[in-house]
Formats: sequence, structure tokens, C-alpha cells
Amino acid sequence: MEIGFIGLGQMGAAIAYNLLQAGHQLIAYNRTREKTAQLAALGAQVAERPAEACNADIVVTMLADDRAVEAIVFGQDGLLEAMPSGATHVSMSTISVALSERLTTAHRAAVQRYVAAPVFGRPDAAAARKLFIIAAGQADTLARCQPLFDAIGQRTLVAGGDPSAANLLKLTGNMLIASVIESLGEAIALARKGGIAPERYMDIMSQTLFTIAMHANYGALIADERLEPGFKARLGLKDIRLVLQAADALEVPMPTASLLHDQFIALCAQGDGELDWTALALLAARNAGLTDGLA
Amino acid sequence: MEIGFIGLGQMGAAIAYNLLQAGHQLIAYNRTREKTAQLAALGAQVAERPAEACNADIVVTMLADDRAVEAIVFGQDGLLEAMPSGATHVSMSTISVALSERLTTAHRAAVQRYVAAPVFGRPDAAAARKLFIIAAGQADTLARCQPLFDAIGQRTLVAGGDPSAANLLKLTGNMLIASVIESLGEAIALARKGGIAPERYMDIMSQTLFTIAMHANYGALIADERLEPGFKARLGLKDIRLVLQAADALEVPMPTASLLHDQFIALCAQGDGELDWTALALLAARNAGLTDGLA
Amino acid sequence: MEIGFIGLGQMGAAIAYNLLQAGHQLIAYNRTREKTAQLAALGAQVAERPAEACNADIVVTMLADDRAVEAIVFGQDGLLEAMPSGATHVSMSTISVALSERLTTAHRAAVQRYVAAPVFGRPDAAAARKLFIIAAGQADTLARCQPLFDAIGQRTLVAGGDPSAANLLKLTGNMLIASVIESLGEAIALARKGGIAPERYMDIMSQTLFTIAMHANYGALIADERLEPGFKARLGLKDIRLVLQAADALEVPMPTASLLHDQFIALCAQGDGELDWTALALLAARNAGLTDGLA
Amino acid sequence: MEIGFIGLGQMGAAIAYNLLQAGHQLIAYNRTREKTAQLAALGAQVAERPAEACNADIVVTMLADDRAVEAIVFGQDGLLEAMPSGATHVSMSTISVALSERLTTAHRAAVQRYVAAPVFGRPDAAAARKLFIIAAGQADTLARCQPLFDAIGQRTLVAGGDPSAANLLKLTGNMLIASVIESLGEAIALARKGGIAPERYMDIMSQTLFTIAMHANYGALIADERLEPGFKARLGLKDIRLVLQAADALEVPMPTASLLHDQFIALCAQGDGELDWTALALLAARNAGLTDGLA
Repeated sequence: MEIGFIGLGQMGAAIAYNLLQAGHQLIAYNRTREKTAQLAALGAQVAERPAEACNADIVVTMLADDRAVEAIVFGQDGLLEAMPSGATHVSMSTISVALSERLTTAHRAAVQRYVAAPVFGRPDAAAARKLFIIAAGQADTLARCQPLFDAIGQRTLVAGGDPSAANLLKLTGNMLIASVIESLGEAIALARKGGIAPERYMDIMSQTLFTIAMHANYGALIADERLEPGFKARLGLKDIRLVLQAADALEVPMPTASLLHDQFIALCAQGDGELDWTALALLAARNAGLTDGLA
Repeated sequence: MEIGFIGLGQMGAAIAYNLLQAGHQLIAYNRTREKTAQLAALGAQVAERPAEACNADIVVTMLADDRAVEAIVFGQDGLLEAMPSGATHVSMSTISVALSERLTTAHRAAVQRYVAAPVFGRPDAAAARKLFIIAAGQADTLARCQPLFDAIGQRTLVAGGDPSAANLLKLTGNMLIASVIESLGEAIALARKGGIAPERYMDIMSQTLFTIAMHANYGALIADERLEPGFKARLGLKDIRLVLQAADALEVPMPTASLLHDQFIALCAQGDGELDWTALALLAARNAGLTDGLA
Repeated sequence: MEIGFIGLGQMGAAIAYNLLQAGHQLIAYNRTREKTAQLAALGAQVAERPAEACNADIVVTMLADDRAVEAIVFGQDGLLEAMPSGATHVSMSTISVALSERLTTAHRAAVQRYVAAPVFGRPDAAAARKLFIIAAGQADTLARCQPLFDAIGQRTLVAGGDPSAANLLKLTGNMLIASVIESLGEAIALARKGGIAPERYMDIMSQTLFTIAMHANYGALIADERLEPGFKARLGLKDIRLVLQAADALEVPMPTASLLHDQFIALCAQGDGELDWTALALLAARNAGLTDGLA
Repeated sequence: MEIGFIGLGQMGAAIAYNLLQAGHQLIAYNRTREKTAQLAALGAQVAERPAEACNADIVVTMLADDRAVEAIVFGQDGLLEAMPSGATHVSMSTISVALSERLTTAHRAAVQRYVAAPVFGRPDAAAARKLFIIAAGQADTLARCQPLFDAIGQRTLVAGGDPSAANLLKLTGNMLIASVIESLGEAIALARKGGIAPERYMDIMSQTLFTIAMHANYGALIADERLEPGFKARLGLKDIRLVLQAADALEVPMPTASLLHDQFIALCAQGDGELDWTALALLAARNAGLTDGLA
């Protein structure tokens, strides 16, 4: 399949690599050119401008946020202008429900196809083709994208016919993870002041209630104080903000999301926005007067 | 081993049965006598008064709450008076950290031993000997209790030398579960108003982020609206109250626990305290103006 | 002074009337024409298009929200295009800090002046010239606007040289009021379940702690269940949303604002967004299981 | 009137002094004897033991907390044992609703009278006879106490026939004040990061929305960073804890109180429990990354 690929950050680069490996033809664009070199060496074409990457059956975007996607889609020389009629835009970025709805309308008006396909998984999962792809859009368009999804993830889960459903799932999924981190952080702060070491606390919890990788991983990150960024607190804040925007638009009170929003803002305000989002546990410790780090 | 056993509710009865099955000698007491009949038929002695059940190496209590434990331990004819010196009280009830500390002191003063051994697992897990036992106390006392633990659970996890550590772990464990339910409830309310059916939402989440039984179970309970009580909201409230008491005493701000406290109180105030604690999701739906139940 | 006036809602109409009464020349525009009739009868000119109202020393806008102000300022034929160079835009609407900053920049670029002058006070206060005007902008521009402010309010308070400071003050002022309503609502729900009638509760509080009109008024509204809209819950939600946007941008965790946001959303979701914002107390009562209204 | 007076802290000493000044006969007891010296010099009798202070028509207690009141009432040689039948206990301490209910029952069983009469006002208000007395109890007993109340306060407000109603009013009153401080603290943190000095912010608010002493005072305290204790954060925590206990017992979700509880705990955990409770604003500033104090 001929695939345009826009956005070669950590996630995008790993996904693009796997598409190449699976035998797809790739024409890749990235704002800073140097990131395309490695892919070019593996046989990808390099686009000078976004529009060049649009001359394909499918155009994948994997960008940082709403603003970046808006610029690349609605901007001059963007996807809306440059994609052929009938081509499909696969948006893998973690963007807002509102933008996804706007993209649905705009692509339809331009007689183009649009699929939202955000993913669960960090860069290492992307590299190992272990991503979960949450896809939503018209059934026939999804079918058309399936070979692409198969090349990059372990499983595709269909959220519905409305693309924004996939974005809602992705965003709330991140909220659910953040909530686990927050509650673990609070519990561990309490345990510490009650004389239980974080490692012992997490060791017991991960053998009993929280036996999956996610919890064990986050727990270990907290207990070991490995706060170098996997997924930055600042990005966690971004996603919770988008959850709250959707909650506001759909009129759903979400006190857990509101709490997470305040905590992430506090983290950023205190200069820790670049730490991994498990730093929510650092904040919980600090709020409890535990000044010697996490453990 | 000769074991006194006090408290034959759903959990206690299943545990006592397994102790008998494992060949231990049991003398059992329950406030309402009829519950002892089945155990008696299987060979247990029946105590007429708590004190009679205290004439043993180990006395297990599995009672509803602090008040019940206080009455049976500190009351006239209670464990403190009746247990022989050197005997061990194994408290399996979900009680407060403060009461556990008080029991530690009181038993020590009475030259008795005390172990806190609350469990993770519902009655069906108790029946199947699949409980996780969170034990804390002096190492030699714990060693003495191990055969008992082996007869009733799949695994014993040692929280520390201070008995109340086990209670803190148990209580915060329940808080962590309640937090998962609450955040799932909010997310599902949002998903519903965004056009995603709860079953599909949970189906996707349980195949991706939340692959363990706990989440799948709670998610299914929510999605299927099976709110007949497994673990009642009112008991969830009790445990969160005890978490907050510990948090207050140890000076740890726990906004997640505070939120859960308010939600459980709202549930009880609205007449739903007897529903399963997954009814937190019912409250989230109601708060979002979804009046037709959960799904 | 020659004043263009755009936006003749309840507040705008009362303010425009007082400007006329004070002898200023008015050219007024409103989207729906009929509202201009009364002012015309009193001597105001009627503008057919916004641009006509811009041909003046000062152009006042008093509009519903950011969207309305954006349309009238940045739109075709809008203030930016139509105001003479050196003229002053006095924005009295309750708008976001971000939009106020954008207006500051845009008017400066167009060699126009810009003052933010939101007000405290409801329509009856506007009619009675009892508004408090919170003004911010360059000192000489403020001085130029003073006769206008004198004609419509009891007092002008200068928030600073940066126009958005006035908006921040106005928005947080509304948050402070909403917070008083929320906490009163919770306290009254508790008092009722404790056997104290809301009227007695408010009677005592308003004679002791809360002796100012604001509290007495809101308390009376709550106690009397007069929830016909003075200031709608939906507008309260709008303002809290703008506070949280500012808090997000400036990185200030505001748990009280987050709580208010969730409560207002719950009110709206439950169909009560058109009630007066004291309906926060109705929500508190409902959450406490008090189903027979407020009292 | 012959009045026994127990508890000569800052508040108690000022009240006792005014009773003496009004011509009442006083027999005073305080745990640490030295505090009685000044009153003795003015004509009060000094009791060696609480029981001696009970030989009077009315016995006033003004003590620190539930524990102190329980000890002095239910303890050996306490009020229940020592007060003559028909005598009245006037409890002015800020105690829990539950303890007030227990006192009601116990005094009735002992054929004694009981009135709850907590006050609004700090020591300077007590000295100036400016207290507000929130009284509750049987009408004839209240009437009997009126001369006492007249001697010490500016006004008596009757909360109801059930003594605990007065405690509920007092406790929620303190919660309402704390909520004002918290929301002001958040708003001022936002204003500061938005470039508005706290003094200017409070200056404007106190001339517009918050024109009463309470707000002006707290606002000034915050703006001036005068955090030496008038009313300590630790005592604020105590009162919020009692509000939440009542809310739990009566099943009223009180998210504002829960938030305040978490904030006060954070203050105490961070070593600031001895500051004035306006230090909630210090916490808000700190959470927003403002490290240079409040202003």
C-alpha cells in the first residue's frame, strides 16, 4: 500500500519503521528534516512539504497535539487541499473529541475518508508492534486500513462508526491510568507515614490486587523513583484537559478528572512538568510533608 | 492445631470450614447460634460464650467492624480476659489502624500475641481457598500461624512487624479498588453521552489497559448493571472512612479518598447503600443526567 | 461624548439608557433590531450594522460571551476594521482573559485603544447606576473613559494597566460568589438533616458571620427556593470555565473552581441549567437525598 | 447569679472576666492553676477541683475539644456527678454534634439541664463583649441563662430546642469561613500569576463584593502575610473534622468540607499547623509554585 506518513516523533518513527518493514511504500514528512534520514536509508521517500506526503491512498498523521494536527490538515498546502478525493486520513495522534469531529466533517465535505486510530502503548511497544489500535470510522474505510494496523500493532479494537469515539476512548483510557497513579501515590504516601516502605507496599499490591503489567510498572516506577520521562506529566495534563473539554461539552461531571487536572497543574507549576507522569506520586508525597523524595 | 473461631458471617463461615477440612480442631462462636450448626455437623465444637472459644492456641476473629471487635475483645468475658497467656489472636476483620494499634498494646500488656491478618477476596474466593492473606506481626508469631493461613488462602504476604501495617494495606487496597470503580464510572458516563455503549467501552478497555480479572469483573458489573450486593456500598463507605481516619492521624492529604467518601455518602443518602459498591457508576450516571439506569 | 454601543441585552440596555440620561450621544447596535426602539425614542441613533456604531470616540461592547465579542470585533465589518484610529473600545462583557489579551494586541496593532471594564452587579444595579466597574488599561485611556463610567456606576476600581487584569478580577469574583453559594448549600443540607430549618439557619448566619447583602440575598434565595433566574447556572458554568482556562494557562491549581465546575455541569446535565445559580444548593440537597426541594 | 466556670483559656478568661464585671458570683476552675490568679484578684472564688465549681446554678465549660469536655463531664468528680439536680450546664466549647447529643442524654438522665452555647468571635471580641452566642436547648433553660449571655455577648441567637443544633451551626459557620479563605487563597494565587498584587486584589474585592469585616479581615491577613496565629490551622482542621463527622452520620456529601480537610491536613503535614488558618492561602500559593511567600 502507498502510505503518506506525517510526524516522526518517537511514536511516529517507530510506527513508520514497521510499515516499511511490512513492505508498504512510504512517503514521509517531518517538520524537522533530520528525522527522515533513517527512514530514507530504509527505502522511504522523503517529502519536502506535507502536500507531497498526501499523494497516497492513506495518509497517516502522528502529531503532538490539536494545534499541530490543525496546522497540517487545515493549513495551506495541508491534507484537506492536497489529499486526492477518496483517499483516507488516518489520525493516530491523541487529539480532542472536538477536533476529531471537525476533521470528520471537513474530510467528508472534501470527499475524503477519515479514520481516528489513536493507540495505547509507549514507544517501546510501538517498536515491538505491540500497540493496541483503537480505531473508529466507517466500516469499509476501517477494512481498507486493516493491513496498515496489522503491520504496527498487536490488535485493533473498533470503537464505533463515529471517529471521535476512538479519541474519547483513548483520552479516557489515559485518565484511567492517571487515576491509578494518583490513588497509588496517595496510598503509598500514607503507607510510608505508617511505616511501610513503598517497595513492600507495591510488592504486595502487585501480587494481589494489581497483577497486571500496567500497575506493576507504574508501581515500580513510583517505588524506584524513576521519574525520567516515559510519558511526561505535561502530556498527561494535556490529555486530562481534553477529557474535561469533552466532559464539559457532553455535560458529564467528572470529579476524578478534575482532581487529576489540579494535580497535574500543581506538578507543572512546581517545575516538574517534564518528569514522567508517575510524578503524581511525588506530589502526593510532597503534600504529605515527605520531603526526601518518594521513598 | 486448636483454633478458636469467632464470627461466622459469609467470610468467617467459609474460612472456618476450610480450617476444619485441613484437619484443625475448631471451637466456634457466633452471636446468632444457628450459624454454628453446619460447622458442628462437620466436627467443630460450639462455644456458648466467646470465652469458651478462647481456650485455644490461636483465636481467630472475623467480625463486621471495629465495634464488633472491640466488644468481643475488650468486653466482659472477652479475648483479653479469656485467652491464655502466650496464645495468639489472629484478627482477620477489616478494622481501623487505630484499633489494630490498640489491640497490639492491649494483648502485649496481657502477655498474649496478636497478629493482624485481613484478607483480599470475596466469599467465593474464601470458599475456594483463594484468599490473599495480608499478615503483620512478630515473625515468630506469624510463623506459628502459617499452617492456619495455608489452609485458607492461596498466599500469605507479610506487611511488616507492626500488625497495623496489614490493616493499612487492606484498607488502602479497598480504596484503590473503589477508585478504579469511580473513575470507570465517570468514564463510562462520558462514553455513553458520547455514543459508546458501556459494554463496548469495557470490552475494549478490558482487552487493552485493564486486562486483569478485577477490572474486567467490575467493568462487567457496571456494564451489565448487576448491582445486587457482592460488597455493599455501605461497607465501601466504612472502609474509606477508616482510610481517612488513618490519613488524618498520619497527616496525609488524600483527595481521592475524600472524593470516594463523598460519593459513597451520596449513594447511601440516596437510598442505594445496600447495592454493590460498583453502584458508584450508577451515581456517576445519575449525576450526568442519565436517568435510565446504567446502560 | 459620542459613544457607540453594541449589545442591548438586559445589562447593556440599562447601561445605554443611563449614558443617554447623562447627556452622551449614543449610536446603538443590537443584533435583533427591536431592542433598539426604546433607546431610539429617547434620542439614540440606531446603527444598522456594527460598523456604523464604530464611528465614535468610544465604542462600548456588552455581549454574551467570547464568541459574540470575537464575531463583533474580528468579523467582517467589525470593530477592528471600522473603529477610527485613536478611538477606544470599552469591553464590558464578561469574557476570558485570553480573549482580552488578544483584543489588547489586536487593537494596539490597529492603532486603537482598548479598555476592559467588566462590572459587578445585576440588571437592577445597572438600572440604578449602582454597578461597580472594574477597569483596566492605560491610565490616559482610562481617564478618557471616566465620564462614561461615572454615568453608569457607583464606583470605578482600577485593576491595573493590563486590560486582562480586570477580566481576571471579574471572573474570580464570580467564582468567589459561587463558592459561597456552594458552601452555604452544603451547610444548609447538613443543617436540614440535623433538624434546623434553612430559614433559621440563614437568619442566624446573616446576623452573625455573613452580614452583607450578598450573603443575605443568596441565603434568602436558597431558603425561599426562589430559583427563577437572576443569574443562570449555565452562565455561572461559563464563568467558572473561564476561570479554569486562566488557571490552566497560568498554572494555578484551583480545586474550589474545579469543584464548582463539576457541580454546575451536574446541574446543567440534570436539566437545571436555566435556574438561578443558587440552584447549587438544590444540587447539594438532592445529593444528600433530600428530594422535597430545598426546604 | 452563681456561676461555676471551667476553662480559662484565652476565650474563657475573657468571658469569665465579663461575668464578674456584670456582677455575677464566680467560682472558677482551670487545670493549670496560675490562670485563676487574675480572676481571683477581681473577686472570683477559685476551685481546686472541677467538682467545686459545680456547686452553682449554672456551670459554664469553655474547653479545647471533645476530649477535654468528656474528661470534665464524664470523669470522676465531673459535672455529671457533682452538679446539683436541676442545675444547668452551659457548654460553650466548639465540640462535636455527637458529643453534644451525648451530653443532652446524660444530663437529662442525671436530672440536670444542658444548653449548648458556642460563640462566634475571637478573643478580642470576647473581651469587648461582642460575641455572638449561638444557643440551643429547652426554652425555659435558655431563658434562665439569658442574663449570663447578656453579660458576655452582643447578641444571642437561638438555634433550636435541641442543643446539638447550636454546635452544628457553629461548626458549619467555621467551615463557611474556611471556605471563603480557601477560595480567596486560590483566587489570589491566580491573580498574582496574572500580574495583580494581592493588596490590590483584596482592595477591590473588599470595596465591591466582600464589604464585611470578615472578608476584609481575612483578605488583609492574606495580603499582608500576617500568619501569626489568631485561630490556628490545626484548630480549623479540628472543626472541619467535626463537620465531616456530622456529615457522615447524617449522610450529607460535603465536597467543600472534604477539600478543606485535605488542605488543612496538607498544611499541618508541611509543618504549618500552628499558623493562622488563613495559611490556606499560603498553601494555595505554594501549590501554584509561588515560593516567595504569599505576596
